[in-house]
Amino acid sequence: MDAPEATGVAARATGRRPHVVIVGGGFGGLQAAKALRHAPVDVTVIDRINHHVFQPLLYWVATAGLSPADISYPIRGILRRQRNAEVQLGEVTGVDVAGQRVLVGERAVPYDYLILATGARHSYFGHADWEPVAPGLKSLADATMLRRRILTAFERAELECDPARRAALLTFVIVGAGPTGVELAGAIAELAHKALRHDFRHFDPATTRVLLVEAGPRILPAFSRHLSDQAQRGLEHLGVEVHTGKAVSAVDAEGVTIGGERVAAQTALWAAGVMASPAGRWLGVATDRAGRVPVNPDLSVPAHPAIFVIGDTAAVASGEQTLPGVAQVAMQAGHYVARAIARRTAGDTAPLPPFTYRDTGNLATVGRSFAVAQIWHLELSGWLAWLVWTGVHILYLIGYRNRFVVMFQWAWTYLTYQRGARLIVPPPSTDG
Amino acid sequence: MDAPEATGVAARATGRRPHVVIVGGGFGGLQAAKALRHAPVDVTVIDRINHHVFQPLLYWVATAGLSPADISYPIRGILRRQRNAEVQLGEVTGVDVAGQRVLVGERAVPYDYLILATGARHSYFGHADWEPVAPGLKSLADATMLRRRILTAFERAELECDPARRAALLTFVIVGAGPTGVELAGAIAELAHKALRHDFRHFDPATTRVLLVEAGPRILPAFSRHLSDQAQRGLEHLGVEVHTGKAVSAVDAEGVTIGGERVAAQTALWAAGVMASPAGRWLGVATDRAGRVPVNPDLSVPAHPAIFVIGDTAAVASGEQTLPGVAQVAMQAGHYVARAIARRTAGDTAPLPPFTYRDTGNLATVGRSFAVAQIWHLELSGWLAWLVWTGVHILYLIGYRNRFVVMFQWAWTYLTYQRGARLIVPPPSTDG
Repeated sequence: MDAPEATGVAARATGRRPHVVIVGGGFGGLQAAKALRHAPVDVTVIDRINHHVFQPLLYWVATAGLSPADISYPIRGILRRQRNAEVQLGEVTGVDVAGQRVLVGERAVPYDYLILATGARHSYFGHADWEPVAPGLKSLADATMLRRRILTAFERAELECDPARRAALLTFVIVGAGPTGVELAGAIAELAHKALRHDFRHFDPATTRVLLVEAGPRILPAFSRHLSDQAQRGLEHLGVEVHTGKAVSAVDAEGVTIGGERVAAQTALWAAGVMASPAGRWLGVATDRAGRVPVNPDLSVPAHPAIFVIGDTAAVASGEQTLPGVAQVAMQAGHYVARAIARRTAGDTAPLPPFTYRDTGNLATVGRSFAVAQIWHLELSGWLAWLVWTGVHILYLIGYRNRFVVMFQWAWTYLTYQRGARLIVPPPSTDG
Repeated sequence: MDAPEATGVAARATGRRPHVVIVGGGFGGLQAAKALRHAPVDVTVIDRINHHVFQPLLYWVATAGLSPADISYPIRGILRRQRNAEVQLGEVTGVDVAGQRVLVGERAVPYDYLILATGARHSYFGHADWEPVAPGLKSLADATMLRRRILTAFERAELECDPARRAALLTFVIVGAGPTGVELAGAIAELAHKALRHDFRHFDPATTRVLLVEAGPRILPAFSRHLSDQAQRGLEHLGVEVHTGKAVSAVDAEGVTIGGERVAAQTALWAAGVMASPAGRWLGVATDRAGRVPVNPDLSVPAHPAIFVIGDTAAVASGEQTLPGVAQVAMQAGHYVARAIARRTAGDTAPLPPFTYRDTGNLATVGRSFAVAQIWHLELSGWLAWLVWTGVHILYLIGYRNRFVVMFQWAWTYLTYQRGARLIVPPPSTDG
């Protein structure tokens, strides 16, 4: 516990305020930055994109119900009034641990304290070749690409004369039945069976097949068995074919092999596994199998007390388990780390009690007006759970404008089944 | 005048309804399709993108005030309930005039009547090398690219230590002072001086320079001199430097040469000239200097009475002049051509009176709450003209959802100066 105190002292001795660098403007990084607003430190948030994204609603963008801007907010705008904070756009390429500098391409940003909150990407369990044919949903770029693929499949089906090829175009396979997989499956089924029902002349969108595949014994394993059953029934009611206990052994551009059986499908989507960002590599520390950095009970990195890792990039032990990669864990960790730094910079050397996660519950929607919710000891399913889900998501969205626009669009979709963002935006060809 | 009647007769003789193919889902093509809804014909609309775009509001997307989906609507959705219409996604590559077929890559779509409504792109007056450094604003892809460039310039300025280079990053040159140039200049000035004013720590966004350059003697040449003066004063009030009577002689990645004088600017935008789509080449007919196809008074192509060209792709003589490339001309032409085809298919061989354009006026906005309007013999400027502009644009937007969302975002921007779509979306890297 020497380095940071020494650093803090050095900073104070020179009259310089300690510099806290936060890499990543997701839930964890932002929460840390905001919680430092009254601390006697200078904060720099570095992100490679200029906006915070509300990841839990990415599937709404992917299924054409919302626009990217509706679920995001410029990081710079969020911290506009926080005078001790600045924002830098840039892609971090490494950390010079000895020199206490974050490397951003050719720039180097010195730090006294470093918070790494860089999130996670998809993991294909060693099948890197599946990535181009079964993209995942972690960023807005992913979401608009998924939207393009889903809508393009219907457009191609309209022009396809061969019935087998048309059927393959109208088959969507979602691999992995956590909340993202379940929500995507429900939304695609509703898009096909409701929003698009009058739009085509050469096929009936009702013939669209949506398959949700899960290797484990049931969908939504983080929920109780009862809620998981309820959610499965909800999905089946929407026309989703749920396949549990079946592993995917092959994915290519023509189809997916599910439990040994080949399904011809032009569109496969990946919601099965994640791999942490390369923060462990930057620090030169060993990571767990999911690429996460094991951290001390106070979320600092062993042997690097001035460096903290939070969110999906950190492996935080909680009893026998590791805390899940959800927004609430990241936000609480961001808040905790900010408090720890504020204390240390104030010269308070008494260690903080270890970080503990207050579980705020689990929520997942199934289609337009059905959700499952597990909050403390309460279990809800159906329309009431959907209202809770709606309220919580509106509340956590950043910006009144976003809240209002998203509420309006949900009401619109609820009443009309229509989806307002059915754009196939071609990838920009040249951008000198 | 033989072919179409013969075709129509042939179609009727075989019991087949005549097939009208419309290429382009812009203002003209859509209006034609909708006006044919009660005609005894089958309509196919072909477009390379799946949505209609409300082009007059593209500058709002480029300046981060609206999302792409707010100003567009799926063509398929617009024609959902029109049972005699279908929509095909595809890029037209040519027309087999002799065989009466539209070529869409490897597909060929036969037609009895063909309406080409394929719009226009930018023209750089022979300086094709200016295009990558001074992009124009004709599509949503253009708009998101412009938005990316504008916002990225501010992000780079925040990291730039060299004052000269920072000044170049904060200098925006807009070439061409028609409505698009004027509206872009006003919106960029407001973005810099209002929306971003608290967002940066290492420079003052108020130092941003916005230059509007026009080779002609005044801005908005389609308006009266009085309104053009009013608009110029409005722009200057927002901090825009207006340079009229000055030609641009060089554009590169480092700056623009304006009236012989070099201005260091990292961002140049093109609003100066357009070139019609290659419809003339498809038909093998001579075009005018702007690439437009000269048409008969009934908008058919000389020697090809079953082929009509409308909108920005057509050169329609009106006295000594050619009709301007604006939405109203295209819409009225689409309606006229639909009526002409409906008459011919009904066996009515009496020629329609020539197409005449009812001028509905000109509108342009200057920033948040100032516009100029020239409607019949009425001239308006200021807040009232801005209300007219707002009303007209909301009215012509397609879809209640879009109208409501745009109205809300305008009200939001009006009250807070904030812009809700400040996303730098990186171009998708791979999309297998």
